[in-house]
Amino acid sequence: MAPRLTRRAFLETSALAAAALASPRLATARADLRFDEYRRHDATALAALVRSGDASPMELLEIAIARAEAVNPTIDAIVVEHFELARAAIRAGLPRGPLYGVPWLLKDLGIALGGTITTEGSRLFVDARHDGDSTLVERYRAAGLAIFGKTHSPEFGGSPSSESALHGRTRNPWDLGRSAGGSSGGSAAAVAAGIVPAAHATDGGGSIRIPASSCGLFGLKPTRGRVPLGPGIYEGWGGLSAGHCVSRSVRDSALLLDVSQGPALGDAYAAPTRERPYVEELAREPGRLRIALMTRPLLPVPVAPECVEAAEQAARLCESLGHVVEPAAPVLDAGPLWAAFGLTSSVGVALKVTRREEALGRAATADELEPITRRTVESGRAASGVEHARARDTLHAASRVLGRFMREYDVILSPTMAQVPPTLGTLSLSQPYEDFIGPASASSVFTALFNMTGQPAMSVPLHWTASGLPVGVMFAGRFGDEATLFRLATQLERARPWMERTPSLEI
Amino acid sequence: MAPRLTRRAFLETSALAAAALASPRLATARADLRFDEYRRHDATALAALVRSGDASPMELLEIAIARAEAVNPTIDAIVVEHFELARAAIRAGLPRGPLYGVPWLLKDLGIALGGTITTEGSRLFVDARHDGDSTLVERYRAAGLAIFGKTHSPEFGGSPSSESALHGRTRNPWDLGRSAGGSSGGSAAAVAAGIVPAAHATDGGGSIRIPASSCGLFGLKPTRGRVPLGPGIYEGWGGLSAGHCVSRSVRDSALLLDVSQGPALGDAYAAPTRERPYVEELAREPGRLRIALMTRPLLPVPVAPECVEAAEQAARLCESLGHVVEPAAPVLDAGPLWAAFGLTSSVGVALKVTRREEALGRAATADELEPITRRTVESGRAASGVEHARARDTLHAASRVLGRFMREYDVILSPTMAQVPPTLGTLSLSQPYEDFIGPASASSVFTALFNMTGQPAMSVPLHWTASGLPVGVMFAGRFGDEATLFRLATQLERARPWMERTPSLEI
Repeated sequence: MAPRLTRRAFLETSALAAAALASPRLATARADLRFDEYRRHDATALAALVRSGDASPMELLEIAIARAEAVNPTIDAIVVEHFELARAAIRAGLPRGPLYGVPWLLKDLGIALGGTITTEGSRLFVDARHDGDSTLVERYRAAGLAIFGKTHSPEFGGSPSSESALHGRTRNPWDLGRSAGGSSGGSAAAVAAGIVPAAHATDGGGSIRIPASSCGLFGLKPTRGRVPLGPGIYEGWGGLSAGHCVSRSVRDSALLLDVSQGPALGDAYAAPTRERPYVEELAREPGRLRIALMTRPLLPVPVAPECVEAAEQAARLCESLGHVVEPAAPVLDAGPLWAAFGLTSSVGVALKVTRREEALGRAATADELEPITRRTVESGRAASGVEHARARDTLHAASRVLGRFMREYDVILSPTMAQVPPTLGTLSLSQPYEDFIGPASASSVFTALFNMTGQPAMSVPLHWTASGLPVGVMFAGRFGDEATLFRLATQLERARPWMERTPSLEI
Repeated sequence: MAPRLTRRAFLETSALAAAALASPRLATARADLRFDEYRRHDATALAALVRSGDASPMELLEIAIARAEAVNPTIDAIVVEHFELARAAIRAGLPRGPLYGVPWLLKDLGIALGGTITTEGSRLFVDARHDGDSTLVERYRAAGLAIFGKTHSPEFGGSPSSESALHGRTRNPWDLGRSAGGSSGGSAAAVAAGIVPAAHATDGGGSIRIPASSCGLFGLKPTRGRVPLGPGIYEGWGGLSAGHCVSRSVRDSALLLDVSQGPALGDAYAAPTRERPYVEELAREPGRLRIALMTRPLLPVPVAPECVEAAEQAARLCESLGHVVEPAAPVLDAGPLWAAFGLTSSVGVALKVTRREEALGRAATADELEPITRRTVESGRAASGVEHARARDTLHAASRVLGRFMREYDVILSPTMAQVPPTLGTLSLSQPYEDFIGPASASSVFTALFNMTGQPAMSVPLHWTASGLPVGVMFAGRFGDEATLFRLATQLERARPWMERTPSLEI
């Protein structure tokens, strides 16, 4: 894990962070025995502690806040604090849902917590306050979660690293000089650093799976339409985006999906109905799965040897568990497909900015949007309605190709990313686009395919490099079939437990 | 039913049709006893006759063809004949599905029958041949249906009357001077005239329900995503359009939906899973439904007194059946909503024309598109991607308003149309737009709302005017809840049977 080397590299590159490291907070953190105990539990277990009377919601919250105060100045994972809101909610009495009393963080993007600001990682939204709750927030509240902050997203989720001109850089707890991934990197860093056992995340091109891979976590992007996005967001990027979480345990992801899933009143679309609660899938065997191993992406992006190795080791692990693995990949015309993806997401970003400009009654100024975001907005505004509709058809045609491919295979196995977590700055939205697009593609080239097709896909923390960097492995299932993924993930977690493996933030 | 008056009016306006009326075909139709027997059966009953050995698929097909040859020169319902294909399919052996041996017609729009042309009602598509079958056609074939022709649609389904420069005017069997409705007017006229007991239809703004209302038939538009549209069409008009059928009996509609429904491999979206086969819903009571009666449309379009009366009589009928009816309507900002509908459908039409032009390697000539279609294409091409994405959000926001409204009501009851079937020519796409838009709105102002929200909605033939014109009544259910509609429709059909009521085409 080479914390020493990492720390040195980091100190050399960041005077600001060095100042944070020198602060007494880390040394005096209240994270003694009590925190160590909290740290060992996942959300499911914390909720059980509360139910059994061995912990109170307020105790858990104060541990989470203390840990946040200790590590957040270093890792910059939480960008909006709602500590008092959470304390007040606990005092007023949280609903006694299945996650009653568990501290919770929302990603600071595309979700509304009534009465608070969601900045979307953008200076343009720095005071964008929401009146009511998103449906998903209503469900989180009903589950008993105590929401005490929002985590860093790059501007509009536009980078696979959580770096923004507004909030700075989220640091990877495994190596503080590297990216925690994005766009849900704030949530992933907060989980990896032990602030919370799981946190809200969204995924429009890999933004759950890339941070999960980067931070050694489990991250499942659900099927399109499984988790409601509304009201107000309606259909993130034309159906590309899906909401859920990053977590340490598989069972937390299953339980959280159980409390989140199902269409909201008036949702325009729904995912196929789940057969049973996902937590019940955990006890079921996946059977003998047919797994397509795909180590080369559809676009000509080079893949780091560690990432190929991670996927190949996972393939051998799957074989040892009785599954049938063979090299295979769907045949798709990747150029037009990725162009359709780019056009759809650009139009989505442009619409968001246009709406905000209308609400403000003025255009965004030059310093309110980062340069690459501005480029995205211009590109989205240049697209015609016919091109937008055609892009949708192109994406749906790819879904059909994958639908046919998945008659032969239950699961597609690949690296999550084509690179290990890059150093900070590599994926900044405030640099020339030409310098950004290569490393951005290396982060998302495997993941984005399943945003296009709407299939569920998960990054599983099965591999670490020799220098201690996490490298996730991705498994994608059939449209609507999270069940198989949860069963397989449980089997993998049992075979190669990763829960005890945590970054040493005792820097 | 005033056939005499109608016939005179018709003769005065159409020399062409008068020639058809004078032809010996009608007089010598083979539609004697054998046809009368066929005519009394719905598709479910015809399939039973075949199963019991009392009729053969070929016998049924020949009766249907004879009836088509007798009446089609008058009503212009079938525009593409596949008589030999159907005979060959029967000789080769139809699959023994639940509709084995029943003659079937496809709407000539947005569906592919392998090896044949779908003209889309347009001179631009007059030789547009399809290689493979649509998924829905595959399912029709698997059900045992014998496809022997395609029925008239106005150009790209762009009018609520089936009139086109390519194929002429479909005449309403109840009054030959009037519209059979559109855009599935060819199918509705064919069913009303007894050629087939039911026929394929699609509905992007009312195109199943308007012809059903106009021709005294049952017509249910399913939930968005219930019936697959692909491959090749993917998502008709951004999810506005849904495919199914018009029929004489409720049970045929249920059985046909059972054989049609469910996502295809790789479909980008799915409707909520049905609880049980729809034919099993027919035997279940709907319970005491809460019904919102809405006799005024959301746009300021005047409603003909006969249409209000039809809805109010239906409301009283529902009360007599034990349901609770009260006046109520969702609160929606109708202007922007209809603009979003118009923009979305225009972009869909423009994309279709663009694709065809690319396939032909040239632009459409001035005489290949009707004037109002040309206007739609221009309007669709002028829309930006951001406007198109925003229109989608506007539509989805309306779905949420309806979703909340439907917490209070199980069903919304309204007139299907705001006018009785207008005289032919009123809704031609080859006239000034200013003359078209008023009567077009009067046809679709009630129906289009449920294309926008994706809810299932059915037109039920419960009313005829004093002069014998059919006037349908519309019932819309919750998103995904066709079951309640089928149960209610069965109850209404039992209380006010309409199956025996047929137009006298003995002109």
